[in-house]
Amino acid sequence: MSTKPMIVQVGPLHGPTQDELARRYDVRRLFEATDKAAFLAAVAPQCQVAVTSGTRGMEASLMQALPQLKLVACFGVGVDAIDVAHAHANGIAVSNTPDVLTEDVADLALALLLGAIRRIPQGDRFVREGSWLKGGMALTASMQQRKVGIVGLGRIGVAIAKRCAAFNTELAYFGPREKPASGLRYFADLVAMARWSDVLIAACPGGEGTRGLVSRSVLEALGPAGVFVNIARGSVVDEAALTELLTSGALGSAGLDVFEREPQVPAGLIALDHVVLHPHQGSATHDTRAAMGRKVLENVEAWFAGRPLIDPV
Amino acid sequence: MSTKPMIVQVGPLHGPTQDELARRYDVRRLFEATDKAAFLAAVAPQCQVAVTSGTRGMEASLMQALPQLKLVACFGVGVDAIDVAHAHANGIAVSNTPDVLTEDVADLALALLLGAIRRIPQGDRFVREGSWLKGGMALTASMQQRKVGIVGLGRIGVAIAKRCAAFNTELAYFGPREKPASGLRYFADLVAMARWSDVLIAACPGGEGTRGLVSRSVLEALGPAGVFVNIARGSVVDEAALTELLTSGALGSAGLDVFEREPQVPAGLIALDHVVLHPHQGSATHDTRAAMGRKVLENVEAWFAGRPLIDPV
Repeated sequence: MSTKPMIVQVGPLHGPTQDELARRYDVRRLFEATDKAAFLAAVAPQCQVAVTSGTRGMEASLMQALPQLKLVACFGVGVDAIDVAHAHANGIAVSNTPDVLTEDVADLALALLLGAIRRIPQGDRFVREGSWLKGGMALTASMQQRKVGIVGLGRIGVAIAKRCAAFNTELAYFGPREKPASGLRYFADLVAMARWSDVLIAACPGGEGTRGLVSRSVLEALGPAGVFVNIARGSVVDEAALTELLTSGALGSAGLDVFEREPQVPAGLIALDHVVLHPHQGSATHDTRAAMGRKVLENVEAWFAGRPLIDPV
Repeated sequence: MSTKPMIVQVGPLHGPTQDELARRYDVRRLFEATDKAAFLAAVAPQCQVAVTSGTRGMEASLMQALPQLKLVACFGVGVDAIDVAHAHANGIAVSNTPDVLTEDVADLALALLLGAIRRIPQGDRFVREGSWLKGGMALTASMQQRKVGIVGLGRIGVAIAKRCAAFNTELAYFGPREKPASGLRYFADLVAMARWSDVLIAACPGGEGTRGLVSRSVLEALGPAGVFVNIARGSVVDEAALTELLTSGALGSAGLDVFEREPQVPAGLIALDHVVLHPHQGSATHDTRAAMGRKVLENVEAWFAGRPLIDPV
C-alpha cells in the first residue's frame, strides 16, 4: 500500500497535471476502472479527495459512494457539472481554478466574434477551395461601431469588455445586479439588451440558474443582423431555437465554443456556413492549462496540509 | 454624346460606387472593352480622369495612352499598383482613400492573429469533420503576454497596436524612422525585432520600397514558435521563403490576407493546416467600401470643380 495520500481522479485531465498528481499522490482513476462499483468499494474507506474536470464534474451519487470525501477539486472555473449544493450540505468542500483562465477565454471570445463578423473560417475555405480564382469573396459586416451586450459581467465579462473597447464598440451588460464601478451601461432585462445589441456575448456561469437564459425571445430580439457568441456553457442558450433562427435567417450569425451536449454538435448547426464552430477550447492553451493544473495541485496540497483552500467555491 | 464629364474606369469596383459614378459621369469601362486599343483611341481626346482600384492600379503605359489624363483616383489606400512616379512626372495627380479603412484592416489583422494562434479555422474544421467525437482538439498557444512587432507604424499600424494592447501584449515597431510620440519600443533593425517578437505583423505600404522587406532572415529570426500576419501587401514578404519555412517548421504559423500574385495562392501554403488564409478582405466590409466609394467620388468631384484634392498622394 502506498504511503502517499489517496486521491480519486474522476475523469481524464491535462496530461502534465495528471502526471504531477500521480507523482505526489496515490491516484486512483475512476475513468479507467472497468468495474466502477468494485473500484468505488475499494477506495471508499480512504478517499477524502477527488479531482475532476469542469466538463466531467461530479454528481451527488458519486459523492455518496465515497462517504469519507471532504474535497472535490475541479480543473476549471465552471462548477456547473458538480453538485455543489449536495457537496456543501454534506460537508464536502469544492475548489476551482478561477482567474488563470480569464484572459485566454476572453481572447477566444474575440477570436470567435471577429471570426463570425469577418468570416475567417469561411475566407480560409474560400481560398483553399479555389473559389478566389473565380472572383472575390462577398463583402462582410464590420466590427466597427457595433453595440456589444455582455451577458454576465464577471471576471471573463470584464476581460471581454476591455478587448471590445479597443475595437471601437459600444458596450453594455446584463446580469443579476448592476455594477456601477464598471462604468458600462446596465440592462436589467436581457431581451431589452438583445434588442439594443448588434452582438451578444454569453459570459455567465452555467448551471440551473442560467439554463436557457439566452432564450428564443432573446435571440429574436438580437435579430437578423445580430451575432451571438458563446464562450460560457451550452446550457445557457436554447440551442434548438439558436439553430432554427440561424437557419431561417432570423438571427445573423454565431461564434460558438460550447454546446449543450458536447462533443455532440447539432447537425443543423454544422450545416450552416455562416456559423463559426469551435470545440470548447476557451482555456485550452498550454500556458493556461498548466496554470490551472498548478491551482488544482495547490488546492489539494492546502487541504492535505490543513490550510484553507486557495479557491473555495 | 453625353453632357456629363467623361471618366475612364480601369477595373471593376464596389458595385454601389460604380453605380454612383455612372449616374454622375460618362463612365467608359476599359475592363469591359474587347478591343482595348480602339477603346483607348476613342476616349483619349477627352479623358482627364481615371478611376481604378488598389488591386488593379494603373501602369505608365496606360497613362501614356491617355494624354489628357490629369487625375488617377484610386479606390483603396495602397497605391503600389499605380505608377505614381510616372504620374507625378507627367502632371497627373493621384488620390486614394486613407483613414476610412484603417479600423477594418486593423480588425482583420487581429482576426487573423487570433485565428492563427487559437486555430479558429482549424477548430471549425475539427467540429464539422466530426473529429471532436473522437477526442479533444490539441492545446494551442496563447495570445497572452506575447511580444508583438509591427512592421510599419502608420495609421493602420497604430490601430493594430491599440487593439493588441487590450490583449496584454508587449509591443514594438520597425519603420524608416522612430516615432517617439507612439510610446512604443522602436527597432531600427527588422531582423532584431523579429528575433525579439513572438508575432510579426506587416502593416507597411507595398511597392518597390518594401519589396521582400520581410525576408527569409526576418522569418528565420521570428522562429519556430513565431506567428507572421500580413494585411499589407503580398510583395512585402518573400513568399517562397515564407512557404518553405512554414512547411519545415522553422516558422510557427501565419495569418495571411494578401499574396504576391492574387488571387493565386501558392499550393505550398494551401497544403498547410496551420496557416490561416484569407482572400484580401482587409477593407472588404459594406460600411468601409461605401466610405471608400464616397472618398473616390469626393476626390473626383473636387478635381472637376477645380478644388484641391481631398486625399492627394
